[in-house]
Amino acid sequence: MFGVDDVQNATSAAVTNPPGLGNFKFGKLVIFDDPVTIDKNYQSEPVARAQGFYFYDMKNDYNAWFSYTLVFNSTQHKGTLNIMGADLMMEKTRDLSVVGGTGDFFMSRGIVTFETDTFEGAKYFRVKMDIKLYDCY
Amino acid sequence: MFGVDDVQNATSAAVTNPPGLGNFKFGKLVIFDDPVTIDKNYQSEPVARAQGFYFYDMKNDYNAWFSYTLVFNSTQHKGTLNIMGADLMMEKTRDLSVVGGTGDFFMSRGIVTFETDTFEGAKYFRVKMDIKLYDCY
Amino acid sequence: MFGVDDVQNATSAAVTNPPGLGNFKFGKLVIFDDPVTIDKNYQSEPVARAQGFYFYDMKNDYNAWFSYTLVFNSTQHKGTLNIMGADLMMEKTRDLSVVGGTGDFFMSRGIVTFETDTFEGAKYFRVKMDIKLYDCY
Repeated sequence: MFGVDDVQNATSAAVTNPPGLGNFKFGKLVIFDDPVTIDKNYQSEPVARAQGFYFYDMKNDYNAWFSYTLVFNSTQHKGTLNIMGADLMMEKTRDLSVVGGTGDFFMSRGIVTFETDTFEGAKYFRVKMDIKLYDCY
Repeated sequence: MFGVDDVQNATSAAVTNPPGLGNFKFGKLVIFDDPVTIDKNYQSEPVARAQGFYFYDMKNDYNAWFSYTLVFNSTQHKGTLNIMGADLMMEKTRDLSVVGGTGDFFMSRGIVTFETDTFEGAKYFRVKMDIKLYDCY
Repeated sequence: MFGVDDVQNATSAAVTNPPGLGNFKFGKLVIFDDPVTIDKNYQSEPVARAQGFYFYDMKNDYNAWFSYTLVFNSTQHKGTLNIMGADLMMEKTRDLSVVGGTGDFFMSRGIVTFETDTFEGAKYFRVKMDIKLYDCY
């Protein structure tokens, strides 16, 4: 997900210019509205949209920080999951927090585990998200 | 709330320029410090400030994403509520998450339901926020 | 923490220009990756990194809003704490919410109390963070 491409296909866009702190895009902030599919084929069944933003925040390596909402609107699930956390890209997997949910996911909390699936230069990357919810309410 | 007007009256400001992805302000990020009043007359009793940001994130319709804090500082309530989530503007009502609270709202969680009250072009809009808290602690 | 200095020492960078609403940096958004140390000597034992962003959001005084992750990666602690809230800088102390945690801090919630420790103009400031966790899971 999070492909940045021509206007026709783009689902995200950078809204700031990195101020030149190192060579790893420190300060680049990207707003996105990306499809989430059931598997890594982007033409497989869409299950949600991921709407939010991320930015790069390290001078000497690629490292990012995300805050976004998974918006479900299918016959199976209606509702949202709200997520935030560091995307420590140098780790094989890294955990972010599900901090709230609405609709079918009313008051959910949990963990989202990111694993980079593919990274095709600046134009396209895809992340596998494994979500575990632990209801608190 | 969230009026954008002349410097005298403004309580918010755009800090990025939309990169031109569609005609619905995709990528416009607005930082705000807005009054929240007891009813829709903006001269009615102020109950809180809403401090945070939102941005537009859809190419083919108006859609936004919010993260902000309600700051209460009155004889009735002192403390904050921290809120985030998608503002799916095409829905009549939409739910965001209260992910934390402080002071009188210590450790609160809950749901905020948004309903657009008025939308006067680019200069002023007002949203009704219905807050339900479910204490977890 | 959050020093903004020459490229060599910088651990943060502004990515937006304040749009000129008042004289208190309204709209300035800063992305950071800052060291957190055990005490106020910045050469004392490092305990975590603070990765995230803040912005100024008041026209007539200094006031800010933070969202960030504390990343722990030591023999004592591995994991993250996700934090957001208003930094009401005119108050001696102010509380933000810990809205989630991962690793050693799995599913944590709590309160972070900020207290300004030093403020050396635009180039450097340091904040004391007192963290109290209340496990909900």
